[in-house]
Amino acid sequence: MTTKIPLELSAREKNDLIAKTNKQLFQSHGLRVYNLISSPGAGKTTLLEKLADLLKEKFAVIVGDLATTRDADRIKAHGSQAVQIETGGGCHLNAEMVQKAFQKLDTTNLKLLIIENVGNLVCPAAYELGEDEKIAMLSLPEGDDKPAKYPSLFLRANLVLISKTDLSPVMDFNLERAKSDCLKLNAHVRIIEISTKAGNNIDTLVRYLMGK
Amino acid sequence: MTTKIPLELSAREKNDLIAKTNKQLFQSHGLRVYNLISSPGAGKTTLLEKLADLLKEKFAVIVGDLATTRDADRIKAHGSQAVQIETGGGCHLNAEMVQKAFQKLDTTNLKLLIIENVGNLVCPAAYELGEDEKIAMLSLPEGDDKPAKYPSLFLRANLVLISKTDLSPVMDFNLERAKSDCLKLNAHVRIIEISTKAGNNIDTLVRYLMGK
Repeated sequence: MTTKIPLELSAREKNDLIAKTNKQLFQSHGLRVYNLISSPGAGKTTLLEKLADLLKEKFAVIVGDLATTRDADRIKAHGSQAVQIETGGGCHLNAEMVQKAFQKLDTTNLKLLIIENVGNLVCPAAYELGEDEKIAMLSLPEGDDKPAKYPSLFLRANLVLISKTDLSPVMDFNLERAKSDCLKLNAHVRIIEISTKAGNNIDTLVRYLMGK
Repeated sequence: MTTKIPLELSAREKNDLIAKTNKQLFQSHGLRVYNLISSPGAGKTTLLEKLADLLKEKFAVIVGDLATTRDADRIKAHGSQAVQIETGGGCHLNAEMVQKAFQKLDTTNLKLLIIENVGNLVCPAAYELGEDEKIAMLSLPEGDDKPAKYPSLFLRANLVLISKTDLSPVMDFNLERAKSDCLKLNAHVRIIEISTKAGNNIDTLVRYLMGK
């Protein structure tokens, strides 16, 4: 499945056309698809390892990094499929990269696909990949001021995960301030506080992701 | 002081031309200038508050954010000059933004200028601003795999600050792995481990920054 692209379109418009094809493709396979965006080190891959433990062949990941295949290797070790995209310096995934990577997945038992974007709070937010929803992840060590300082992501995210909540005893993070800043940007956002390490609210998150 | 830009240049080439003018401008004022780059929440602004406490009118900051003037306000409250650049969604500073911001600084007693880039490990690394050196900052909660996963920054940085070392008792961060990955990318890099909260190695850093 490929998309015919008129020559006169801008890069962003081309991307959005391919994203639309991706969305149809995902729907034709009965998949729920999320675009997971955060800073480097917020805990995306650790969470995805946990989801792989729980969901195995129902779950797959397409993961983007500037370099290395470490993240895909980590997820495969937990029993789910994972396809690595190395962007070679690119600061975000685009719909074409995702379309190519998706062709490498066996969709037989697949229900849930998470696209782990390049660790970056800015650029990934601007590119549609064909996902159902964007998920923004913010870890306690990053600070409660980030939703206000990086609005482009937080106003587009349907779900905000506040992660590493096990660190709250040693962190100066004002949860109410972070939540209220998220809600100012998007009154309909869902916010779930999780700790992958302690296992907190992972069950709530799985129900959300599976659409239950 | 402005730079004449031939029309046929690419955006990157234009930037590099303006960066060269900036460098001459900084040198004519006898300034040491650093471009500080990290993920959101690695502790850049908290460190700059500490430097403002110590250096007062000898020190100034030009700080870039997508939105808000919180960072500049924080630094001014500690006794140094600070000029905020709001990029309006842009994922990195460029040399022209810095040139305009620099005109707002009183350089009479100034010795040290730090440009706090937008929190992003990818895009800021590719744009020269006229600085003497790039500083990469990596906090313990982000994980020891980041130098290998974000090589574009770490191979260009002259100095790597490993920050929030006070969190080492609760973090699974392999310091030797992080350092060895940095040295593989740049054999001449200087690495300083700091904790702004505990005050560790701030004196070493100040000596480095002042060129002593």
